[in-house]
Amino acid sequence: MPISRRTLLSVLAVTAIVFFAQSSFGQVPDASNSATFRNDLMPQPTSLQVGQGAFQITSALTVSLPRTHSERLQRGVLRALKRLEGKTGTPLPRQIGAATGGTLIVSAASDGAAVQGIDEDESYSLTVAESSIELDAATTVGALHGLETLIQLAQPSGNGYIVPAVTIYDSPRFRWRGLMIDCGRHFEPIDVLERNIDAMAAVKLNVFHWHLTEDQGFRIESKIFPRLTVVGSDGQFYTQDEARALVQYARDRGIRVVPEFEMPGHSTAWLVAYPELNSGSEPTGIRREFGVSKYALDPTREETYDFIEKFLREMTTIFPDQYVHIGGDETPAPDWKTNPRILAFMKAHDLADNAALQAYFNQRILAILTKLHRRMVGWDEILNPALPKDVVVQSWRGVASLAKGAQQGYQGVLSAPYYLDGMQPAATPYLADPVPANTDLTPEQQKLILGGEVCMWGEQIDARTIDSRIWPRTAAIAERFWSAQNVRDVNDMYRRLEPVSVELETMNLQHLKSEDAGLRDLLGSEKIGALRTFAEAFEPVRFGERYQQQHTSQLTPLTSFVDAVRPDPPIRHSLELAAQTLLAHPTSTSASVEEARKTLDEFFAQESAAAPEVLRAMASAPRLQPVQMRAEQLEKLAEIGQEAMRHLSDRTPSPEGWKTASLSTIEEAKKQSESVRFQFLPVLTQLVNANR
Amino acid sequence: MPISRRTLLSVLAVTAIVFFAQSSFGQVPDASNSATFRNDLMPQPTSLQVGQGAFQITSALTVSLPRTHSERLQRGVLRALKRLEGKTGTPLPRQIGAATGGTLIVSAASDGAAVQGIDEDESYSLTVAESSIELDAATTVGALHGLETLIQLAQPSGNGYIVPAVTIYDSPRFRWRGLMIDCGRHFEPIDVLERNIDAMAAVKLNVFHWHLTEDQGFRIESKIFPRLTVVGSDGQFYTQDEARALVQYARDRGIRVVPEFEMPGHSTAWLVAYPELNSGSEPTGIRREFGVSKYALDPTREETYDFIEKFLREMTTIFPDQYVHIGGDETPAPDWKTNPRILAFMKAHDLADNAALQAYFNQRILAILTKLHRRMVGWDEILNPALPKDVVVQSWRGVASLAKGAQQGYQGVLSAPYYLDGMQPAATPYLADPVPANTDLTPEQQKLILGGEVCMWGEQIDARTIDSRIWPRTAAIAERFWSAQNVRDVNDMYRRLEPVSVELETMNLQHLKSEDAGLRDLLGSEKIGALRTFAEAFEPVRFGERYQQQHTSQLTPLTSFVDAVRPDPPIRHSLELAAQTLLAHPTSTSASVEEARKTLDEFFAQESAAAPEVLRAMASAPRLQPVQMRAEQLEKLAEIGQEAMRHLSDRTPSPEGWKTASLSTIEEAKKQSESVRFQFLPVLTQLVNANR
Repeated sequence: MPISRRTLLSVLAVTAIVFFAQSSFGQVPDASNSATFRNDLMPQPTSLQVGQGAFQITSALTVSLPRTHSERLQRGVLRALKRLEGKTGTPLPRQIGAATGGTLIVSAASDGAAVQGIDEDESYSLTVAESSIELDAATTVGALHGLETLIQLAQPSGNGYIVPAVTIYDSPRFRWRGLMIDCGRHFEPIDVLERNIDAMAAVKLNVFHWHLTEDQGFRIESKIFPRLTVVGSDGQFYTQDEARALVQYARDRGIRVVPEFEMPGHSTAWLVAYPELNSGSEPTGIRREFGVSKYALDPTREETYDFIEKFLREMTTIFPDQYVHIGGDETPAPDWKTNPRILAFMKAHDLADNAALQAYFNQRILAILTKLHRRMVGWDEILNPALPKDVVVQSWRGVASLAKGAQQGYQGVLSAPYYLDGMQPAATPYLADPVPANTDLTPEQQKLILGGEVCMWGEQIDARTIDSRIWPRTAAIAERFWSAQNVRDVNDMYRRLEPVSVELETMNLQHLKSEDAGLRDLLGSEKIGALRTFAEAFEPVRFGERYQQQHTSQLTPLTSFVDAVRPDPPIRHSLELAAQTLLAHPTSTSASVEEARKTLDEFFAQESAAAPEVLRAMASAPRLQPVQMRAEQLEKLAEIGQEAMRHLSDRTPSPEGWKTASLSTIEEAKKQSESVRFQFLPVLTQLVNANR
Repeated sequence: MPISRRTLLSVLAVTAIVFFAQSSFGQVPDASNSATFRNDLMPQPTSLQVGQGAFQITSALTVSLPRTHSERLQRGVLRALKRLEGKTGTPLPRQIGAATGGTLIVSAASDGAAVQGIDEDESYSLTVAESSIELDAATTVGALHGLETLIQLAQPSGNGYIVPAVTIYDSPRFRWRGLMIDCGRHFEPIDVLERNIDAMAAVKLNVFHWHLTEDQGFRIESKIFPRLTVVGSDGQFYTQDEARALVQYARDRGIRVVPEFEMPGHSTAWLVAYPELNSGSEPTGIRREFGVSKYALDPTREETYDFIEKFLREMTTIFPDQYVHIGGDETPAPDWKTNPRILAFMKAHDLADNAALQAYFNQRILAILTKLHRRMVGWDEILNPALPKDVVVQSWRGVASLAKGAQQGYQGVLSAPYYLDGMQPAATPYLADPVPANTDLTPEQQKLILGGEVCMWGEQIDARTIDSRIWPRTAAIAERFWSAQNVRDVNDMYRRLEPVSVELETMNLQHLKSEDAGLRDLLGSEKIGALRTFAEAFEPVRFGERYQQQHTSQLTPLTSFVDAVRPDPPIRHSLELAAQTLLAHPTSTSASVEEARKTLDEFFAQESAAAPEVLRAMASAPRLQPVQMRAEQLEKLAEIGQEAMRHLSDRTPSPEGWKTASLSTIEEAKKQSESVRFQFLPVLTQLVNANR
C-alpha cells in the first residue's frame, strides 16, 4: 500500500512501536495504564503503542479539520460523533467548528480520488493523549478508517468513557476487501444494503460487490432494455436512482461498488426478457429452482454484443468504479454443443469446445469494457491465457486456483474460504489466508493477490435473515483481510467479536435480533424463553445440505426453524473453551475450572428443561412440529451431558455400557434432520470420552 | 360511512349476522366448529358469523380478481400472499392468474378515487368456505382491509393452517383513523416511516399525518426555498422524490398522507432560513431545546403570504391529499405584543389581541389553501367563528373541546387521549372514545366527529426506539377508531394484542426487538439475561416527566436505560390479571388461582435474582450506573412481593409492622428517578394490603 510521506514520517516519529506478534492480543505490553487498556479493536491495527493516561469523552469535545474539510469527510465525522454520543451517552457537537483548535483533530491531506480505486491510500495514524486526539491520513478514506478505530477504542472508565492514550499506525494488508451480496436469487431492499454497508465500513471493508443478475431475477433497471426488470424481476429491482444513491452512500463510507452482471450463464432473466439472446433453448419464465441452468447467451451473434455494449454503457452511468464483474461461472451451455449455427461458428473460428467459445466471448466483452474504460473481473472460469493481465480473477475454487492465476500473472481475489452459506464457525474462514504463511508464490506474485471477498449467496436468505448470516462472522474475516498475517489467535478473536457485534447492532444491523423475531413468529407468541434456549443448541446446516434435504427454491418460505437459528452462536465457542479448560484438569477446583464446569452444567440443565417445554408448545405451532425429533434428541443429549459432568466431578466410573450408548445417541443426532445440526456435539463427545 | 349498494346487498344476504355486544369476544356464538375458531381479529369487525368447516391453506391456492384488477390491487394481493406464505410456511403463488376460477376471489368494484378522500368506501365482506374465499368490496381500499382480516384469520390447525369458515361484513365506525409522526424534533428515516405505514395498514388505519416542520427542524425539501432544509435541518430531510414515493407507498396501502407545516408558531426552522419572515426576534439557529418557543411568522406582512403561497403551491405537487395541516398551536408570539409595526397593523385592522391576529392569519392561509384546492386542518387553537365549516379541527385539548367544535358545526378529529408520549398502558387510550356513549352531541353533530388520530411526538424518540413507543399500543387504538363503540373488553383486547404484535414484527417492525438491542448496547455484551428480566420491571415515564427530570433536548443521546425500556410491557397486564384472580380467592387451590400464584411467584423470584446481578454488571457499564438506586429498590420490592405471597398462602398474619414498612418502601419507590417507574407497584400494593 502506498503510504503518504507525511503519514510515514509521523510513524517514524513514534519511538517504540509495538508490532503485534502472534497471541499477544489482549495482553498489551506493559505501560503505565496498560491495566485499564482493553484491546478490543477489530481489525487489529498494524501497530499500537499504549501511552500515559486517557482522553476523557465529554461534551466539551470539539472537532477541527485543518486540511481537507470535504463534505464527505464532514459527514463522516458527524456520523462518528453521533455513534460516539450513543456509545458514551454524552452529547457531542452537531457541527464541525473552526479549522484549528479542536480537541479532536481530523487531518486528511486530500479527499482522495474522485472515483476510489484500488490504489487509494487508506492508511492513517491516530494519536490519543489526555488533551487531544489527532487523526492523520492521506485521504478521507484513511480518516474514515481512523474514526472507526476511535469509536472502538472508546471504553468505560469509572462512571464515564475514555479513549486510552495510544499511538496507532495502521494500514491494510490487502487493498481489495470485499463483501458480495447476491440480490439476484432473493431481492434485498435498499435499506438492508445500506445497513450492511455501514457495517462493512465499521470493520474497514472497502468493496461492495453487488451481484445484480441471476437466473432467478434481474435486479437493476435498464431504461434501454426495460423488459429486463419488467419481465425478469417479479417487480423487485433497484431503480437507477436508487442504485446511484447507494453508490454515493458507499462512497461516503470509503466503499467501492463493483456491480456484477452474470454472463453468458446464470442468465435466464436476460433471456426471458429478450429471447433473441438465447443459444437455442428459450426459458418460459425466470427460474425458481436453484443450481446450474442450461440457458446461456448466444456468443456467436453480433446482436448479442450490440445488446451487451448498450447495456454496459448504460450501467457505466450508474457505476463509476473501474471494475465491472461479468460473472462467467457455471456455463455448461448444452446448446453450444448441439445448435448447428453455433457449431458452424465454432468451426469457422477454430474454437474447439465450449471453453474456447466462452474465452472468445470473454474477449469480446473485455473489448467492450475497455472501450468503456472499465476493467474486467470474473470468476475462476474466465482464466484463460488469451486474456490480458489486468483482468481480475475472483476465485471460488480456492487458494490453489488463485495462486495458479498469480503464477500466470493475473491479479486475484480469494473467495472460496469465505462463503458464508457454508455456515462454518467464524474461526474457519478467519484462519484461511489469501496468502498463507507457507505460500509458494514469489513476493512479486504475492502482490497480485489483491485481497479477498466474503460471499453471501442468496438461495436461502431474505431481508429478515440476511444480517445474521453475514454478521458477526464477516467482522472476523475483515480482520483477516486488513491485519497482519500472524494475527491468528482464535480465542482472542472471539473475545473481540462480541463487542464488535454489539456495536454493529447499534447501526441497525439485525443479526442479533432476527433469531428472537423468528422464534416469536414460529410460536405466534412473545413468550419464547424456552424456545430461545432450545434454539441456542443448534446451527443451520450449509445451504447445499438444506437444498438436498428440502429441495429449496426461490418459492420456499424462509420462515422455518432453521431460518431463525443463527450460525456460530456465541455459546458454541464458550462451551468449546469450557470443555478445553475442564478436561485439562477435570477434578481441579481452581476458579477457572469451576467457572468452566458451571458453564457446561448450566447449558445442559437449561437445555434439559427447555426441550420438553418446546415439545409441548409445538401442539399449537405447526411450523415448529418438524423439529419434534430434534427436541426429543436434545432431551437425551442434555441428559447425557449432565451424566457426563456428574461422572467427571464424582470421579466415579460411568455405568457399564453408558459410554457406548451415549456415543451411539450422539451419532444418531448427527444425522440430517430439518436442516439444523446440534452445535455442541464435539464438546459432548469429548466429555463422554473423558469418562472412564 | 357510505356503503355501496352491492356490498349492502351481500350483507343482507347473510341470514344470521352476529353483531358483537360487549364482552362477547373470545366467546364466539355456538356453531359447529366454534370450538376451533379463535377470534384474534384486531380491529374487531362489524359482524362475524362462524360457519361450517374451514378453508385449508395449501400451495394449490389460486387467486382471481374478477372485477378491478388495478396494479394497486394486484400489488396488495401479492403482498398479502407473501405474508400468508410466511405465516403458514406454505409456498403460495407469485402471480395472479386468470380473472375467474381462483380459490381466493378478490372482487373490488372499482379502484376508488384517484386521490383517496374521507368518503372512500372502505367496507368489505369476506366469506370463507371450505372450497373458496370470497372477498367483496366497493373499492381497492376495502379489499386491502379485507386481506388484512384474512391474514389475521389464518390460524394453526393440526399440522397446517386454516382459515375458519366465517362470513364477515365490516366497515369502519370512523372515516379518519390516523397516526401522526413528528419528524421535526427528531428525523425518522424513510424506511422507518414505510414500516410504520405497513403496520398502520395491518390494523386498518387510513391517515398518515406527517408532521414535517418544527422549531427543531424543517424536514421537507423545497426547491423554491432551499434554505429551509439547507439551514434548517442539519442535513436531515426528505427529498421531494422521497416524499412522493412515500405518498405512493401509502396510497398502495389505502393510506392518505396529510402533511403538516406548522405556522405561525413552531416555526424557528423557517425563520433561521428566511429571517425576513420573523415577527421581530430572529433565531440564531434551529432550536435544540423543546417546549414552546417565542418565534413566530409575521402575519402582518404581505411578503409572508407570498412566501407561504409559493411554498404551499410547491407542496401540492408532492401531496395530493385534499387536506393540509397548518399546525396553528402554541403561538404565544410575544413580538406581536411589542413590535410597533405589528401593533400598528392590529390597530388598523381592528384586531384586539394575539388570538385575533392569529385568526386573521388563519383566514389568509385558508384563502391560499382554497385557491390551491385544499382544505385546512389545524390544532384546537385555529377554532374561530370566522372560519368556514369545512375546516377540520384536530383536538389536543380533549373530547370536550372536540364536542364544542362539533356543536359549532366544525368537523373534528380527536387526539388528546391518544398521545403516545404519555406512556400509558394501552387500556387507557383504548377506552377513550371520540364519541363516548354518554355524549351530549346530536346525531348530526356526531357525524362531524371524523375520527381520531394517534400522536407520536418526537422529543424523545429516534429510529432505534420509535417503534416500541408506537406499537403495539396503536393497534388497540386502531380498534377504537374502527370497531363498534361497545367493543371495550380490556382483557380480551390484551389477549388479541399479543398475536397482532408478533404479526407486526414479521413486517419488520422493531417494537419487540429494540428493548433487547438497547440493553445489549448499555451492557456492551450479548449476555443480557438478568438485565432483560430487570428491565421488565419498568416502564418509561411520560415525555413531560422525563423532560422535567433530565431537561432533555434534541441533543440528548437516546441511549439511556429508559430508552430501552418499553411502555406497557405485556407482563404488566399479566400480573394485574393474576393479582385480580388470586385476591378474589387467596387461599383457593383451583387451577386458575394456582396459575395466578405461579405467575406472581415467578415474577418476584426472577426480579429478586436479577437485581443483584444487574448491580454487579454496572461496574463496567457506566450508562447503567444511574439506575443503581432503581436496582436496589427492586431488590427490596421483590422481597416484599415474595413475603406478601408467602403470608397470603400461609394464611399467617404478617409480622408486626411489616405492612407499614412495606407500603412505605413502595411509596419511596414511586418517587422519580431516571425517568423509569416500576410497572408493578399497583399490584404489589394490592398484595401487601391483602395481608392481615
